[in-house]
Amino acid sequence: PRGRRPLRRRLPLLPLLLLAAGGLRAAERSGGSSSAMEELATEKEAEESHRQDSVSLLTFILLLTLTILTIWLFKHRRVRFLHETGLAMIYGLIVGVILRYGTPSTSGHDKPFSCSQEDRPFTTLLVNVSGKFFEYTLKGEISPGKIHNVEQNDMLRKVTFDPEVFFNILLPPIIFHAGYSLKKRHFFRNLGSILAYAFLGTAVSCFIIGNLMYGVVKLMKLVGQLSDKFYYTDCLLFGAIISATDPVTVLAIFNELHADVDLYAVLFGESVLNDAVAIVLSSSIVAYQPTGENTHAFDAAAFFKSVGVFLGIFSGSFMMGAVTGVVTFTKLHCFPLLETALFFLMSWSTFLLAEACGFTGVVAVLFCGITQAHYTYNNLSVESRSRTKQLFEVLHFLAENFIFSYMGLALFTFQKHIFSPVFIIGAFVAIFLGRAAHIYPLSFLLNLGRRHKISWSFQHMMMFSGLRGAMAFALAIRDTATYSHQMMFSTTLLIVFFTVWIVGGGTTPMLSWLNIRVGVDPDQDPPPTNDSFQQESAWLFRLWYSFDHNYLKPILTHSGPPLTTTLPSWCGLIARCLTSPQVYDNQEQLREEDSDFILNDGDLTVTYGDTTITANGSSGPHTKNPWTLLTVLVCDKQQTSN
Amino acid sequence: PRGRRPLRRRLPLLPLLLLAAGGLRAAERSGGSSSAMEELATEKEAEESHRQDSVSLLTFILLLTLTILTIWLFKHRRVRFLHETGLAMIYGLIVGVILRYGTPSTSGHDKPFSCSQEDRPFTTLLVNVSGKFFEYTLKGEISPGKIHNVEQNDMLRKVTFDPEVFFNILLPPIIFHAGYSLKKRHFFRNLGSILAYAFLGTAVSCFIIGNLMYGVVKLMKLVGQLSDKFYYTDCLLFGAIISATDPVTVLAIFNELHADVDLYAVLFGESVLNDAVAIVLSSSIVAYQPTGENTHAFDAAAFFKSVGVFLGIFSGSFMMGAVTGVVTFTKLHCFPLLETALFFLMSWSTFLLAEACGFTGVVAVLFCGITQAHYTYNNLSVESRSRTKQLFEVLHFLAENFIFSYMGLALFTFQKHIFSPVFIIGAFVAIFLGRAAHIYPLSFLLNLGRRHKISWSFQHMMMFSGLRGAMAFALAIRDTATYSHQMMFSTTLLIVFFTVWIVGGGTTPMLSWLNIRVGVDPDQDPPPTNDSFQQESAWLFRLWYSFDHNYLKPILTHSGPPLTTTLPSWCGLIARCLTSPQVYDNQEQLREEDSDFILNDGDLTVTYGDTTITANGSSGPHTKNPWTLLTVLVCDKQQTSN
Repeated sequence: PRGRRPLRRRLPLLPLLLLAAGGLRAAERSGGSSSAMEELATEKEAEESHRQDSVSLLTFILLLTLTILTIWLFKHRRVRFLHETGLAMIYGLIVGVILRYGTPSTSGHDKPFSCSQEDRPFTTLLVNVSGKFFEYTLKGEISPGKIHNVEQNDMLRKVTFDPEVFFNILLPPIIFHAGYSLKKRHFFRNLGSILAYAFLGTAVSCFIIGNLMYGVVKLMKLVGQLSDKFYYTDCLLFGAIISATDPVTVLAIFNELHADVDLYAVLFGESVLNDAVAIVLSSSIVAYQPTGENTHAFDAAAFFKSVGVFLGIFSGSFMMGAVTGVVTFTKLHCFPLLETALFFLMSWSTFLLAEACGFTGVVAVLFCGITQAHYTYNNLSVESRSRTKQLFEVLHFLAENFIFSYMGLALFTFQKHIFSPVFIIGAFVAIFLGRAAHIYPLSFLLNLGRRHKISWSFQHMMMFSGLRGAMAFALAIRDTATYSHQMMFSTTLLIVFFTVWIVGGGTTPMLSWLNIRVGVDPDQDPPPTNDSFQQESAWLFRLWYSFDHNYLKPILTHSGPPLTTTLPSWCGLIARCLTSPQVYDNQEQLREEDSDFILNDGDLTVTYGDTTITANGSSGPHTKNPWTLLTVLVCDKQQTSN
Repeated sequence: PRGRRPLRRRLPLLPLLLLAAGGLRAAERSGGSSSAMEELATEKEAEESHRQDSVSLLTFILLLTLTILTIWLFKHRRVRFLHETGLAMIYGLIVGVILRYGTPSTSGHDKPFSCSQEDRPFTTLLVNVSGKFFEYTLKGEISPGKIHNVEQNDMLRKVTFDPEVFFNILLPPIIFHAGYSLKKRHFFRNLGSILAYAFLGTAVSCFIIGNLMYGVVKLMKLVGQLSDKFYYTDCLLFGAIISATDPVTVLAIFNELHADVDLYAVLFGESVLNDAVAIVLSSSIVAYQPTGENTHAFDAAAFFKSVGVFLGIFSGSFMMGAVTGVVTFTKLHCFPLLETALFFLMSWSTFLLAEACGFTGVVAVLFCGITQAHYTYNNLSVESRSRTKQLFEVLHFLAENFIFSYMGLALFTFQKHIFSPVFIIGAFVAIFLGRAAHIYPLSFLLNLGRRHKISWSFQHMMMFSGLRGAMAFALAIRDTATYSHQMMFSTTLLIVFFTVWIVGGGTTPMLSWLNIRVGVDPDQDPPPTNDSFQQESAWLFRLWYSFDHNYLKPILTHSGPPLTTTLPSWCGLIARCLTSPQVYDNQEQLREEDSDFILNDGDLTVTYGDTTITANGSSGPHTKNPWTLLTVLVCDKQQTSN
C-alpha cells in the first residue's frame, strides 16, 4: 500500500452514526501536496473510527434483532407478563453492562488541543496545521471538571446518540403512527373526556408533581443531600417531563385481550394528546426559566403563551393536513407507489414546515396523522391504504424498540448519572399522587356531565396505566447539562424502567381483578346497554360530526353526501364545483366508515355515534361479515334521518 | 424573552441535514454561569441555522413532490419521452438556478478563527473561550485558495450534502431493490452473458475510456488547456466511474411496453453487476494510485487485488444472505410486522457488517438482495412478501428521485465546477467508443457459444442503452478535492444529463426502429421458437440449478424436494434433520416458482430453464391464470424427471 487509501475509508459516515454525539468524522480531504506519513496516520484513525461506528450500529441492530426474535417466541407462547418494550430494555441493559465493564477504557489517544480565544465561541474554526488549513465545527461545551473524561471510552462515546435524534428522527414516526391509527369514532365519542384528561389532567399533574418535588428538593437541601442548585422551575420541568404517559404496554394487552373499547379509546387518546401537551409545556417552562434571582416565580404569561403556541400549532397542522388531503384528492390512486411516496413526503414536510416556522414538529406530525387518517385516507386507493399503514407500522415498531433498548443501554453507558435515593423515592410518590390527583377528581367532574359514567374500575385502571415511556425519556435526555437536569434524567430513566416492567406485567391480573370486560368482539357483540350510545359529549360530537360529515368530508374526500344536498340552495354553484364527481358514486357506499377500520383488523368495531343500533333479522349478532351489518345499519340511519 | 430560549432551538438537528456538509451544528450546551448576552447571540444564530436547515430540506421535499405529481400526470397521459428521473433533474436544475442567482450571498458573518498548530490535525479540539471549554470536531481540509469562499453562501452550503450520504444512505436501498427485484429465472438463463458483459465488459470499457481520456489529456496539455496535474490513474478512475451504466429509463419503458424479456434480463443484470464492478474497480484504482513519480504505471496487483476483494465480498455477502435466510426460516410468518422488521434489519446489518469488515457495503447489499429474493422470499408469509417488496420499492423510489434531483441542483450549486470543452467532447466520444468496444466484440464472442444468438438489433439496443446514472454520479462526487477530480465530476454530471434525457426520450422510437418485439405478454405467449430455451449457458445453468434445487432450497427454504429424496440414502439422518416439515406439504405447490413473480405483476413470465414447454390442452396459451399453467407444467416436469 503506497500513498492514499481508498476514498471510501476517508470519509467515514454511516447512516445513523452521523447523528451520534461522538466526534465521528475525522475526515480530511487532503490535497496532493501533503506528506504520505501524516496522511496514513490520520487515515488509519479514520478507518478505525469508521469500523467502530459500524460495530456500534451493529450492536443496536443485534439488540433489535434479539428483541424481535424473543417477541416472536413470546407471542408464539402467548406470554403476556413482559411486553416487547420491556424486553428491549432488558437486552439494552445487558449490552450496556457489557459495554461499560467489558470494553477497555481507551483513554484519549488523541489528547485534545487547547488554545485560548478571547471572544465568544465560533461555530466554525479554521486551524492551520503546518501550512494546511483544517475546518472544525463546534460540538458543544464541556464543563471544566469533565475535560479529562471526554475521550474516556471510544465505544461508550460511539453508542451515545445526540438527544435531538430522538426528537427529530425517532419520535416523529411513533407519534405520527399514533395519530394515524387513532380510532376516530371512539375518539370523537369520548372527545370531551379525552381533552379534559389530556389538557387539564396533564397541567394538574405537572403542577402537583412540580410542587411535591420542590418540597423534596427543600428536604434534600435541609439534610445536605443536594450539592448544586435546583430551582423551582426545574421541578416544574420535571413535572412536565414525567407527565407524558405512554401506556403502549397496557394498550397492547388491551388489544390482544379485546378489552373494553371505550376505555381503550380514552387511554389511547389521553396518552397521545398528553405527549403533545407535555412537549409544549416543558418547552415553555424552559423558555421562561428565570436566570438569576426570582427563581420561585411561575410566570403566568409562560403558561398562556404555551397555550397560544399550542393552539397555533394545532391549527397550523390542521391546515397542513387539510392541504395534504386536497393534494391527494386527485386520481393519483392509479399509482399506489406515487401515492405512498407523496403521503410520506407530506407527513415529513409537515414536520419540517412546523420546525421552520418555529413550532414543534412532533406535535404538528401528530395532528397531521389524525387529519390524514380522517380525510386523506378516504382518498387513497385500497393498496395505498395498506401500504401507508404498513410503512408507518414498521417505522413505528423499529423506532419504538430502538428507543427502549437505548434506554436500557443508557443506564450504564450514560456518563453523567446522578442517582439520589431521596429524589427518586420522592419522584415515585409524586407521580403516584400526581396521577391520582389527575384521574379521580377529573373523572368525578366528568361523571357529573356524562350519561355513561366512567366506572370506578375504569378509573383504577387508568390510574394503574400511568406508564412513562419514550416521550418522557426523550424530554429528559434533551438537556442534561446541569446538575438538576442530570438528576432528573436518571430518575426519569428509573421511573420508565419500573413502570414499564411492573405495570406491563401487572396489566392482565389487574384487568381480571377489576372485572373489566375482556374478549369483547365488537362487531358481534354490541354493548349490552343502550345508554352507552347516549354519549356524554353528544352535543359536542353531534355538532362536530354534522359539520364534518356534511361539509368537510365532501370537500376534502371522495365520500360523504354531495354538497349540493347539504348546502342551502343559493350555494348551488359553489357546491357543484367543490363536490367530487365520485361522491355521487360513493354516496351509497359511505366510504367514511372505512376510517374506523384502520388499525386492527381484529378490532373491527361498528358504532354509530348518535344512532341506536336496531339490527335487522338478516344481520343479527352472529353475522360474520361486518360489512353486511354496516350496510344495514347505514340504511337504517338514512331512513331515520329522511 | 428573558434568558434561555427553548431547548429545542439550541441543538438544531434535522434528519438528513445531519448529513449535510455545512457546519450545521452551532450547538452549545452552556452551563448556568454564562452571560446572557453571549448566549442569546449564539442561540439566535443556532435558531437561524435550524430554520435554514428546515427550509433546505423542504426544498428537496418540494422537488420530490413536484416530481411525483408530474410523473403522475405523465403516466396518466402516457407520455414516454421523459422519464421521472429526467424530470427530477429538470426540477433540480430550476431550483439550482434560483438558489444560485436568487439568494443573497451572505458572506461569512462568522469569520473563521485561525490558530496555528505544530502537529498533525487532531480529530477533536478543545478551545478555551474566556474560561469555558468548547469541543470542536474536525470537518476536513480546506485548500488555501478557498479559505475565503468557505462561507460564501449559507443556503448553497446547506443544500450541499456530504458525498458519503449517497454511498451510505441513498445507494443501498436502490441497489438492494435492484438485487431483490432481479428476475432470477431470466437472470440465471442468461448468466453467462450477463457475467461476461458485467465483468469483462466493464473492465474493457474502463481501460479503453481511461486510455482515450489520457490521449485527450495529453492533447489538452499540448494546446495549453490543462492548468494542473492529470495523472494516468485519474484517467483510469474516470473510466471506472463512467463505466457504471444505469438504464433505469430504458428498463422502465421496456417494462411498460412489455419488450423482450431476455433483452430486459441481460440489460438489467449487466447494469446491476457492473455497478458493483465499477465501485470495486474505482476503489482499487484510488488505492493504488502512485503518489509522486511513476504516474504512468498501472499496477497489475491492484487489478488482481480488486478481483480478490470483489470475490471476498461476493462470498461474504452470499454467506450473510444465506444466514438471513436461515434466520427467517422460522415460523415467524405468523407476524408479518416482525418479519418485515427483521428483514429490513438483516439487510441493513449486511451493509454494516461489510463496512465493519472493510468491504464495500453497497456491493454486499446487492448480493444480499439477490440471495434474499432467492431463498428468504420463499420463507416469508404472503403479507410479508408484499410488505417487503413495497417497503423497498418506496425507499428505492424516493432515493432514486432524490439523487437525480440533487444532480440537477448540483450543476448550479456545486462550487468547484471545471468545465473543459475539450475534455467533455473527448469524454462523450470515449464513452461511445468504450461502449461499442464492450458490446459488439463481446456479443460476437458470446454468440459463438450461444445457440440463441444475440441479434444485431439487441446489440444495437444494448449499445444505445448505455446510460449513466446514480452510481456514476455518486462515484464522481466522492472525491472532488483535486483539479482532475473536479473536472471529472463536472463532465460526469453532463454525461448523466445528456444520456438520461436523450436516451430516455429515444427509447421508444429506437425500439420500433430496431424492430424489437414489444407487447410481449409472457404468460400467454411463449416465444415462437423452441431453441430460445436451449440456453447458451445451459450447462452452467443446469449444474447450478440442480444443486440449488436439490440441496440449497430444501435446506434454506420451506420449498423444493425433501432432502431425503435428493441426498444419497446413507445421509438419511442428516437429510431428515435439515428438511423442514413444511417441505413435504409444499412439495406439490413448488413455491419456488413464486420467486419469478417478485417485481411486476404485469410481467409474469413462465419459463422453465431446461424443460421444454409442452402445455396440455387444458392449459393452452389462452389460459388467463398463470398458476394453472404453472401447476400443469410442473407436473409435466416431475413426470419427465421420474
